[in-house]
Amino acid sequence: MHVLSDESIPPSEYQERIQTLRYGLQAANLAGMVSFGDCWRGANICYFTEFRPLDGVSDIANAIFFLDLDEEQPSLFVSRQCVDYATEVTSFPVYSFDEMKARLEAFAARVQTGTLGLEGASYITEDLSRRVRASIGNLTLKDTQVLAEIKAVKSENEVALIRKASALTDIAMASIRDALADGKQHTERELALIADRAMLAGGAERTGYDSMVQAGPRSAFNLARPTDRVLQPGDLVMTDIGARYRGYVADGGRGFTYGNVSPDKVAIVKAAAAAVEAGLAAARPGITASSLNATIQQALVNSGYEQFSTEARGHGTGHGTGMDPEEAQPWIGPGNETTLRENMVFTLKATITVPGVGGLRTERIVRLTATACEPLDEFPMELYW
Amino acid sequence: MHVLSDESIPPSEYQERIQTLRYGLQAANLAGMVSFGDCWRGANICYFTEFRPLDGVSDIANAIFFLDLDEEQPSLFVSRQCVDYATEVTSFPVYSFDEMKARLEAFAARVQTGTLGLEGASYITEDLSRRVRASIGNLTLKDTQVLAEIKAVKSENEVALIRKASALTDIAMASIRDALADGKQHTERELALIADRAMLAGGAERTGYDSMVQAGPRSAFNLARPTDRVLQPGDLVMTDIGARYRGYVADGGRGFTYGNVSPDKVAIVKAAAAAVEAGLAAARPGITASSLNATIQQALVNSGYEQFSTEARGHGTGHGTGMDPEEAQPWIGPGNETTLRENMVFTLKATITVPGVGGLRTERIVRLTATACEPLDEFPMELYW
Repeated sequence: MHVLSDESIPPSEYQERIQTLRYGLQAANLAGMVSFGDCWRGANICYFTEFRPLDGVSDIANAIFFLDLDEEQPSLFVSRQCVDYATEVTSFPVYSFDEMKARLEAFAARVQTGTLGLEGASYITEDLSRRVRASIGNLTLKDTQVLAEIKAVKSENEVALIRKASALTDIAMASIRDALADGKQHTERELALIADRAMLAGGAERTGYDSMVQAGPRSAFNLARPTDRVLQPGDLVMTDIGARYRGYVADGGRGFTYGNVSPDKVAIVKAAAAAVEAGLAAARPGITASSLNATIQQALVNSGYEQFSTEARGHGTGHGTGMDPEEAQPWIGPGNETTLRENMVFTLKATITVPGVGGLRTERIVRLTATACEPLDEFPMELYW
Repeated sequence: MHVLSDESIPPSEYQERIQTLRYGLQAANLAGMVSFGDCWRGANICYFTEFRPLDGVSDIANAIFFLDLDEEQPSLFVSRQCVDYATEVTSFPVYSFDEMKARLEAFAARVQTGTLGLEGASYITEDLSRRVRASIGNLTLKDTQVLAEIKAVKSENEVALIRKASALTDIAMASIRDALADGKQHTERELALIADRAMLAGGAERTGYDSMVQAGPRSAFNLARPTDRVLQPGDLVMTDIGARYRGYVADGGRGFTYGNVSPDKVAIVKAAAAAVEAGLAAARPGITASSLNATIQQALVNSGYEQFSTEARGHGTGHGTGMDPEEAQPWIGPGNETTLRENMVFTLKATITVPGVGGLRTERIVRLTATACEPLDEFPMELYW
């Protein structure tokens, strides 16, 4: 009954992913893995099945993927209301959350002792975590990144989908540029909506996340939602926009000046672009995430914006992306000695926010080739509109 | 700096809400309230401030509203990255999560003993719940619905926004009807996208939740995401679609037959519509939620679909809606002896899913007037396309 399109991840690839995870868990000396995902942060689930939970305040929003190394097949636990749908699009057994306790208890009774990995620890609900912990007897539940590390390296099919999402994000930026060209008044909220419409018109299945457009003094806020503020000539404008295409997302950031602006605003645009350029030039397989981070961080420090940039102060200059806008690996930050590998996909970013002046985040999405890095988005970084 | 539009909730209304909550907590003998919300289920936060968390796997996705009955003003705890934005749009003090421990400890040290209400218990993250519990000394943290009950009754401003979201949802259904009129082939996924585009074109700030369109055998799944299945003449089609407009949402459900269909499919459409009609006729202030539920439930049982309808089997026939698609109160279900009141806004629904035949969910959004109920959406319930 289930129809696959040319762009669907083929069933064989899902099988390979499960096999790779099995090896990873064995190597980490784990007895199995509990992986939590929800409607909005689905990667820990959707990496193995087309099933994605639904929006809600109840258990329809959640799912748990469970792999017991002694079992032939993994299990998926979902709300009772979603079992039919999940069964249709999943190649392994699906159970309702009502059945989770008994199945985990049987696993714990057999294994007796050892450690079970938990993926998604930073956002699992208290309710589900309690239910898991109460069902695993003497086993220890331990936060892991085994899955995060595996899915940091993307397949050809995945890269094609992220490339498409990146192209849709470029279209969104072009739609903002075109809208501003009419010389009329536009609010942040209107421009965000224009970007969203452009992504959907281009075939995005939705936005990757709620679009951010922040103008003037509001561009100096690190993260904010759009308001009814009208763009004024002289503003620096921060945007953070990404499309979702068939389960994969882009995470993009661009800022621009609007009308005639003071030189300090142009300097901010140039400094962020130069820092990201330095990262694009340095990124390649074989170096560590921390060394790539150091390149961008140092460029920001050198530009003189150290006190106005979280990246310059060591909070990281990029992160994995793919099925979720933000994935745990590779985190491009201080102390992450993970070696970067071909086909890792991640962002490289520089945020500069000067209170009273303005700011922007310039964020590119890249794939590592055999020897260097290929940006998956194409929109220019220095924008003076 | 912050610009308010004509449609913004006025600051005075936010103040009234806080005052009403204060009375509610006193009446419930609570020392205060911790209210959790996230980027997607924001009602527990956005009821008091225009701040809404951002999409992410880290703490940017979360927020905690804290009201200590002994303090003049409540507090809002958010990610450090969101403090500037939250401060701009919030009328009371904002702190970063880093400061939460010390503030809760000071509260606990003063209060010494008693109970602190927790709102959002079913979806609070394990991480944040742990941090709250570890900071409140001898106080007990207890799940409450004090806030849920207060915000079940909507203000005039709120009803106006929900009405707008409902009108945008009607437009989405009309766009599906118009798309199907061309006689060409359409997939579930295409139709969902057409609905999303129509909502955004009409001015929706986004969809209220990811649109569901399920055709043929898939319409017999209670909840599912759209796939590449092409609609076939003879299909019953389930849709579940709602728009978001300036922080308020509609939650709508309609099914339709496509082309010439067998009489059993028409009968399903008629039975669901008749059950919801019975609810619309019965809904009024002064009756209990459980008695309204019984009216719809009985209509479904009488129609003969008892085994194919979750509502007929006592799982509830409606729920509050407003800032989140699904709000906890009023829950229209068995055992809820809450008395319905004027200006409560909620859905009334009937789902019938017959495996191998198909199904639909007919879901209306209504507001209680002084004496009866007024549907906020207008799209017809019996659709034969």
